[in-house]
Amino acid sequence: MAVYTDVPAELLAEFLAPYGLGDIRTFKGIAEGVSNSNFLLETAGDDGPERFILTLYERRIDAADLPWFIGLMEHLADRGLPVPRPVRDRDGQALQRLAGRHACLIRFLPGVSVSSPTAAQARAAGRSLAGLHLAGRDYADVRPNGLGPGWWHSTAALLGARLDSLEAGLADLVDRRLAGLRHDWPADLPAGTIHADLFPDNVLMLGNRVSGLIDFYFACTDLLAYDLAVLLNAWAFPPDGTAPLADRWEAALEGYEAVRPLDPAERAALPRLCEGAALRFLLSRAQDWLEPADGALVARKDPLPFARRLAWHAAHG
Amino acid sequence: MAVYTDVPAELLAEFLAPYGLGDIRTFKGIAEGVSNSNFLLETAGDDGPERFILTLYERRIDAADLPWFIGLMEHLADRGLPVPRPVRDRDGQALQRLAGRHACLIRFLPGVSVSSPTAAQARAAGRSLAGLHLAGRDYADVRPNGLGPGWWHSTAALLGARLDSLEAGLADLVDRRLAGLRHDWPADLPAGTIHADLFPDNVLMLGNRVSGLIDFYFACTDLLAYDLAVLLNAWAFPPDGTAPLADRWEAALEGYEAVRPLDPAERAALPRLCEGAALRFLLSRAQDWLEPADGALVARKDPLPFARRLAWHAAHG
Repeated sequence: MAVYTDVPAELLAEFLAPYGLGDIRTFKGIAEGVSNSNFLLETAGDDGPERFILTLYERRIDAADLPWFIGLMEHLADRGLPVPRPVRDRDGQALQRLAGRHACLIRFLPGVSVSSPTAAQARAAGRSLAGLHLAGRDYADVRPNGLGPGWWHSTAALLGARLDSLEAGLADLVDRRLAGLRHDWPADLPAGTIHADLFPDNVLMLGNRVSGLIDFYFACTDLLAYDLAVLLNAWAFPPDGTAPLADRWEAALEGYEAVRPLDPAERAALPRLCEGAALRFLLSRAQDWLEPADGALVARKDPLPFARRLAWHAAHG
Repeated sequence: MAVYTDVPAELLAEFLAPYGLGDIRTFKGIAEGVSNSNFLLETAGDDGPERFILTLYERRIDAADLPWFIGLMEHLADRGLPVPRPVRDRDGQALQRLAGRHACLIRFLPGVSVSSPTAAQARAAGRSLAGLHLAGRDYADVRPNGLGPGWWHSTAALLGARLDSLEAGLADLVDRRLAGLRHDWPADLPAGTIHADLFPDNVLMLGNRVSGLIDFYFACTDLLAYDLAVLLNAWAFPPDGTAPLADRWEAALEGYEAVRPLDPAERAALPRLCEGAALRFLLSRAQDWLEPADGALVARKDPLPFARRLAWHAAHG
């Protein structure tokens, strides 16, 4: 949560000229994103002020993936989803260079990320995720999930016994669940474009309405119901992760199924998918904790609440 | 430049209730201020959207000074200056508590901070500073300058020979200029309320017009012409500080004097005041460099360009 790259006002004005957006009225670095620098921009458009987010891509993101992410945001915005639309300059280019970084200007969306979602908000998030899955079906390009089962195994091997420095017994829990999922991971469920990180901080809300789905930089092509499992882990557990909150769980699931009903195989696989989703976030957070990236400006998130979720799903699946 | 304190949306909604500002439409941490956490807030006011900055006071700032700073902003805004107006809740309170911190909601001002001011922009900044000095004359409360000559001496003594680790000969330069200013520092010039830190990043501009004067957390009661010296050092030198840019210098001075002409004693003292202003920023930056604060999220600024300014003023005064 920081701004890594400084963009002087004079450089910004030069960068924006080919967009024809009018004079700059506000430009402020915002504390969003862990791999990017983000700025809130307001210009004096022809029909009144217009707002944008300027993103500079800093780390973790493979530049070769940027056209896929930007294309996806445009695809979803075209289909009416509340997804920030990338802005093209007069030559039709959305992906740019600025201050030595890849950069993209996207439309600003109003709304606030909630920290403790209510059941009504979990329901709205579930609906939105299903809408994203339907709208993403005809996004033809494929991007494999770099944080899928193969990555869990290699990362667990890399971290090994060091996991026990986070909590005694954690390495063993991870090993056992990895072995279980190796045999039990569903393969033939409906797949498509997924967000893969739809936590509450990536959803903007106005009251109980979803006004924005943001941060598509983990999006990929994978099992749709796995994306729902990520959402259930994120929206339907208390912060300590010990046991799901029944009303949020039911609401998120109902919201999703109101738009895209699960098929019986997806429903049957859901406990295993929730285990896999818990493992993915447990391992990435454990890695951030045990091997902090250079710079280390990123606030490390506690991995243990995802160990709790993993244990719960394993016991109740 | 970071957000140190997290403010969950639910806590924010509770905090804002006594203000009666309408529903929250946007809330984003912004990368402004080194001692505070700042957030951009938009609410759905009765007559359309309204924007604010929410500041949480984190460090360096003595809580006992907060009523003085907040009172000054209100005083200047009342007199028509483009200064962010503190917002009072329904009970008339502007200074609040939030998330364990002192907090204040202020009005948002549009504009962009320039990095390389033009002469026209330096002129506008000079005019605004003089306007601030006139409007601040009847702000009766006094706050001594905690970073004045007494502080230079104690800080130089504290840093001592370590200054030479920044650049060979720096400790000697500082010692010699301190000795010179000890005898030569003006005492009987017009004094009043000064900003004391009016660098380009504390001025919001729309083109060549000043739309905002911000960050009053170094403001104090001191010589008015010293404040002009701070501004000349900040607006009329290139980044390396080697020698002033004549056109910016002239423009800033003319702009200031168009609103508040200097008296002959102030004019005569200006070279010494510029030396003192260079020393103050040289020493505070050297201290940040040599004794980083805990947390160390603050981007350290290079002290050496202020050694260059100091040397230039000493040679040309």
